[in-house]
Amino acid sequence: MTTRRRRLRLGMIGGGPGAFIGPVHRMAARLDDRYEFVAGLLSGDPTRAIAGGQALGLDDDRIYTDLAAMMAAERSRADGVDAVAIVTPNRHHYEAAIACLDAGISVICDKLMTTGLSDAQDLVARVARTNLIFAVTYNYTGYPMVRQARAMVVAGEIGALRTVQVEYAQDWLAEPLERTGHKQAAWRADPKLAGPGGAIGDIGTHAFNLAEFVTGARIVELAADLSRFVPGRALDDNAQILLRFAGDARGALWVSQVAPGHANGLRLRVYGSRGALDWQQERPNELRFTRLGRPTEIRARGGPGLASASAGHGGRLPAGHTEGYLEAFATLYADAADAIGARLGWNDPPVNGPLLPSVIEGARGVAFIEAAGASAERNSVWMPIEVTA
Amino acid sequence: MTTRRRRLRLGMIGGGPGAFIGPVHRMAARLDDRYEFVAGLLSGDPTRAIAGGQALGLDDDRIYTDLAAMMAAERSRADGVDAVAIVTPNRHHYEAAIACLDAGISVICDKLMTTGLSDAQDLVARVARTNLIFAVTYNYTGYPMVRQARAMVVAGEIGALRTVQVEYAQDWLAEPLERTGHKQAAWRADPKLAGPGGAIGDIGTHAFNLAEFVTGARIVELAADLSRFVPGRALDDNAQILLRFAGDARGALWVSQVAPGHANGLRLRVYGSRGALDWQQERPNELRFTRLGRPTEIRARGGPGLASASAGHGGRLPAGHTEGYLEAFATLYADAADAIGARLGWNDPPVNGPLLPSVIEGARGVAFIEAAGASAERNSVWMPIEVTA
Amino acid sequence: MTTRRRRLRLGMIGGGPGAFIGPVHRMAARLDDRYEFVAGLLSGDPTRAIAGGQALGLDDDRIYTDLAAMMAAERSRADGVDAVAIVTPNRHHYEAAIACLDAGISVICDKLMTTGLSDAQDLVARVARTNLIFAVTYNYTGYPMVRQARAMVVAGEIGALRTVQVEYAQDWLAEPLERTGHKQAAWRADPKLAGPGGAIGDIGTHAFNLAEFVTGARIVELAADLSRFVPGRALDDNAQILLRFAGDARGALWVSQVAPGHANGLRLRVYGSRGALDWQQERPNELRFTRLGRPTEIRARGGPGLASASAGHGGRLPAGHTEGYLEAFATLYADAADAIGARLGWNDPPVNGPLLPSVIEGARGVAFIEAAGASAERNSVWMPIEVTA
Amino acid sequence: MTTRRRRLRLGMIGGGPGAFIGPVHRMAARLDDRYEFVAGLLSGDPTRAIAGGQALGLDDDRIYTDLAAMMAAERSRADGVDAVAIVTPNRHHYEAAIACLDAGISVICDKLMTTGLSDAQDLVARVARTNLIFAVTYNYTGYPMVRQARAMVVAGEIGALRTVQVEYAQDWLAEPLERTGHKQAAWRADPKLAGPGGAIGDIGTHAFNLAEFVTGARIVELAADLSRFVPGRALDDNAQILLRFAGDARGALWVSQVAPGHANGLRLRVYGSRGALDWQQERPNELRFTRLGRPTEIRARGGPGLASASAGHGGRLPAGHTEGYLEAFATLYADAADAIGARLGWNDPPVNGPLLPSVIEGARGVAFIEAAGASAERNSVWMPIEVTA
Repeated sequence: MTTRRRRLRLGMIGGGPGAFIGPVHRMAARLDDRYEFVAGLLSGDPTRAIAGGQALGLDDDRIYTDLAAMMAAERSRADGVDAVAIVTPNRHHYEAAIACLDAGISVICDKLMTTGLSDAQDLVARVARTNLIFAVTYNYTGYPMVRQARAMVVAGEIGALRTVQVEYAQDWLAEPLERTGHKQAAWRADPKLAGPGGAIGDIGTHAFNLAEFVTGARIVELAADLSRFVPGRALDDNAQILLRFAGDARGALWVSQVAPGHANGLRLRVYGSRGALDWQQERPNELRFTRLGRPTEIRARGGPGLASASAGHGGRLPAGHTEGYLEAFATLYADAADAIGARLGWNDPPVNGPLLPSVIEGARGVAFIEAAGASAERNSVWMPIEVTA
Repeated sequence: MTTRRRRLRLGMIGGGPGAFIGPVHRMAARLDDRYEFVAGLLSGDPTRAIAGGQALGLDDDRIYTDLAAMMAAERSRADGVDAVAIVTPNRHHYEAAIACLDAGISVICDKLMTTGLSDAQDLVARVARTNLIFAVTYNYTGYPMVRQARAMVVAGEIGALRTVQVEYAQDWLAEPLERTGHKQAAWRADPKLAGPGGAIGDIGTHAFNLAEFVTGARIVELAADLSRFVPGRALDDNAQILLRFAGDARGALWVSQVAPGHANGLRLRVYGSRGALDWQQERPNELRFTRLGRPTEIRARGGPGLASASAGHGGRLPAGHTEGYLEAFATLYADAADAIGARLGWNDPPVNGPLLPSVIEGARGVAFIEAAGASAERNSVWMPIEVTA
Repeated sequence: MTTRRRRLRLGMIGGGPGAFIGPVHRMAARLDDRYEFVAGLLSGDPTRAIAGGQALGLDDDRIYTDLAAMMAAERSRADGVDAVAIVTPNRHHYEAAIACLDAGISVICDKLMTTGLSDAQDLVARVARTNLIFAVTYNYTGYPMVRQARAMVVAGEIGALRTVQVEYAQDWLAEPLERTGHKQAAWRADPKLAGPGGAIGDIGTHAFNLAEFVTGARIVELAADLSRFVPGRALDDNAQILLRFAGDARGALWVSQVAPGHANGLRLRVYGSRGALDWQQERPNELRFTRLGRPTEIRARGGPGLASASAGHGGRLPAGHTEGYLEAFATLYADAADAIGARLGWNDPPVNGPLLPSVIEGARGVAFIEAAGASAERNSVWMPIEVTA
Repeated sequence: MTTRRRRLRLGMIGGGPGAFIGPVHRMAARLDDRYEFVAGLLSGDPTRAIAGGQALGLDDDRIYTDLAAMMAAERSRADGVDAVAIVTPNRHHYEAAIACLDAGISVICDKLMTTGLSDAQDLVARVARTNLIFAVTYNYTGYPMVRQARAMVVAGEIGALRTVQVEYAQDWLAEPLERTGHKQAAWRADPKLAGPGGAIGDIGTHAFNLAEFVTGARIVELAADLSRFVPGRALDDNAQILLRFAGDARGALWVSQVAPGHANGLRLRVYGSRGALDWQQERPNELRFTRLGRPTEIRARGGPGLASASAGHGGRLPAGHTEGYLEAFATLYADAADAIGARLGWNDPPVNGPLLPSVIEGARGVAFIEAAGASAERNSVWMPIEVTA
């Protein structure tokens, strides 16, 4: 029988009224009951920060309006936060992350980790000098069938990697929503807040990360053609990108936020010399697997034919009882809890530790958008993607 | 801005170590942060009850091993529970429900509500004499696209109801799992614990309830052919049932737990004079709608073309960010919180109140399995389904 | 290398201007180049018969306007027809079939074979007294993946048969099309031309035949609930039917011509003790197969994992090059050519001979609609389905 | 009523024993009964040419073993061929085409039209000097829902074109089948017979043509990355290609013959400012259409919501009665018959004439593979695609 143990204390920077991803982080943290949300700097606007904290039931003395004050207060409390979730617009991630690391607090940072690669490399170096946990919420890696896919590739079930088709298509920016007062659209369309990538930063990085996560291979160069289809838009809203992996493997990545009919159409297909895998985020409980010369199989979360449990988190429910986005997100929080718990001496280092996207994955996402931008500026010349660990 | 308000205090009867549905109720209660789990009688075995309570972090004085003691203690505490979730095997629901009602505590009862119709009718009468909330977790009604379907039928979008095809197929009992020590299979296969229905009780009731919920029409009689395909099994594992609705509408219900390839295959199709709807639990974020003479449309949770918000809970995430079983289950908990909150004077009676399955729906589920059994015994003669409100 | 051999000479009764199934038979006969269409009595209306024959390029002396004359002329010619396709409304099948058999001409008869069971039994007896070929175009049996399914059941791949779900849903009669001058709708809605079955005769018989064909098992009794949803309609347009197979197997059959969203929705699912099969006519090149305890596989026409060629006709094209309705129909014509060729001494009796639906299958289709009608009249009492071979 | 008219007389070059596409052309020509196959030079090997002609029932004097002899004989006969189908390996198309044009015979030529662009341009010029019909069987343009898609784009239903995703994936060459004696694989892998393109020539040209056909827009340049994944293979078996259309539209084309799980996976998705279309060859009777801000619709061949008949050939059967590859191929033959008939004065020039792929489309396919090869040699630099009309 499990012994009784306190929940981890979680703080949050960003995620106040009107936010999308802040509430997602909070639900994800809550689902498995391993975190207690106790402190927050929920907005850069003090009035909203306070209102948000009150609405969420935080104690008054842990509703913050200033980053330095939050750090000072939490590090001095006996019951200070064990981890902070950073869920602001991209522009503020770097400053918040440094503050947490300096305060000795582990970080769960939303992507895009930083708006530039030099900041990202700086975070890589800083994290290396601590023993803190720094997770970046490339949340699609938390889906059980994505982890299943990775385990199958690692186990050699598709043979040598040949080609990868990955796409992430949405349609919510097919018209200039950012000029209508829509908060989510506005900051993503503003280079000052979002960084240099539009669709490639907002969702392309997920596609890039997913391709590397499942294949276990690094994408070493890319050739990109970026478009801004909506007149007046400052950042790309569609990109066609060729990929070259370490070794001979090739691929293509398509990202669009102007593709009618796609709500959140992330799909990855991986082809090897002996088999292939196909996963779609909008049917996340299925993974199609073809062994060359055999019929395609539909492998289902919780169903027969799966790799051993060491593949990662298999979900919370029996087969057929669908799980979704929040459960996958919660799995990253559970993995982070295992990792932080190990640091606190509560448990052994987690078997699944390597599955949790780290500061390196965070930096590679930033390198991806810089390479894509540079390639596009030079008429799609091949550009390398390099992060120094 | 929402004012700060305490969360509802939730107790639980059943749901100890090894249970399936108990943890589901707890995750569902937690997701929207409107309940605090504070007290439990988690098993009929005192040792397991205590171990389970400790593992879940309950205070020692609220880990109970006796029903009467739990009721006495909780009703006498200033911070006593506002509601109790009953998640034992079916056999114990009735006794637990009576105890809660007598103690003035609202109930969230798993289905099958009781093992016999007379007990069910007694609960109907008892609930009518209180102003307590009594919800039965026909959880598939919590899916946003199920509620969307109901709203569309009510709004006349399919015209007059003609025929309904509903099925709920699983395969986990295709072999005699109940004889292998599998806890979930064992109690479901035992008439003393499960009641008189096998597959019809365990999952057929969900299909029956879903058909009535979406159509807003009552099934008035049925003709059933029940099978026990696995040798030695005491209860049905497959049923073919004809349905007659009030009015001229007809239907068929198939339920099976011996159907290879189906993990949790609940599907409802509703056909009217002007259109049709098709929903599948394993792809719950989609609802297919055909207006007669027009192409079939795929309506998506969060996407375009939906009925107004009054259709019910639309989910927690944007379109394409899949939600699943736990989110739907949580919606019943949220609805129950609204209903209980209204009773406490915290909020107005919920608009969605009628969507929360009540003691009447609970009793109809029991009436369904009694009618099916009686019909099958008489070579599939039509039998009425009657519950007195 | 194949030796040169003349094509079979084909005549046709029915199938003149405006017909649906006549042109289908002609395309099917033409596809594999084994028939030459040389003679026809294309309509009961002499003017239309002549115009139709001319439009189709028949020689003037083989455009007939009278059944007896056609029979007399063709049997007296050295190059008389080897076979006649009967494609009139159901009402005329029996008379035409008798005339052909009496003239010593093999028959390819569209379903419904006759409008009553006594006529059907008479044809069974008459065919038994000849060595002529008498095929009934239950054309869905010609799909390669339907034959694959049958071969797999026969080979024991799904174990002992347990339950069968078969449905055939259309929507073209959801409104009273028969009162608008629509020729196809009009005769089907008229008991004098169609016989006693509406939807059950027009398409239900296909579903019934498909279930028996794939399972290799006989349906011994049924319980039916028939509806006429469109006001004023004389024949059923929707039916819910319970099935009992020889042995313990059970099933349900749903047929509807008032189900919005279904164009030609024939689907068969067969569940056994060790596996299951799922085939849909609108995706005919796929067959889903689940071996109990294994992931579902998508077996594709021409693809890997298929039963040996003895399963029947595997199609004309490589995998992925879709085949459809006409190709399946043509396979029945090819099988009939093999059977007729054997009779002429051109080839050995075909291995696939038993796959070609015979006069017995034709009679069983008629028995099915009579049993369904009788059951419905008696409030869904179980009725036997019996044909004497 | 249609008047009686003879069928067109068709000859064939190539397509003897063991061929794949020759029999397809013959079935396609036969389906609608507008051609009579009367003459052939079926193989470059005289023995096989004769055996093949006999097996197909040709008269002895029209079984040829020499191209010049065939041309001389046919042009001198009163009943000489009206058209010749050229279905040899690519290498021989050009010589055969010139011979036919010089003999005043219309041509139906399989793709790849020629193995080099200069030959292709020469054919363009030669055809321009005649009034003969020269069709190239980009057969996927014959699918009714492909023509529907084109009509919808032309009608503005998706607004301004933004991006195109087209892919054509197969798996039959995932291993070195060409070294096993497999006739179809062998010639396609041999640059002398196939020309300079492997997968890009065999199937990539279909994808390229389909994208231009449906959008009605020209692809003006491409950037390609070609792979030869199977060791020892002389030609590409996988290609990732970026596309730029006239105007701002962009796209990506993926072609592979080493992608496990794909039998004949041709798929086209077209996105515009107001809507999108999605068509898959393996489900050819469906076309998914999304109008921006509305739910996705599944438009079905023969079903509701289609463009007017001027969209092109709508198929031969009612909705739900699936049509496939042969029917689409036959539609090109029917269109060619209309075009040839107009030349013969039998009918007016066909409304659908522009839908029949011409010598220009044939030349563009050749230009595509030359551009792809040139781009790949220069590390994926953008290369123009130019054909002079």
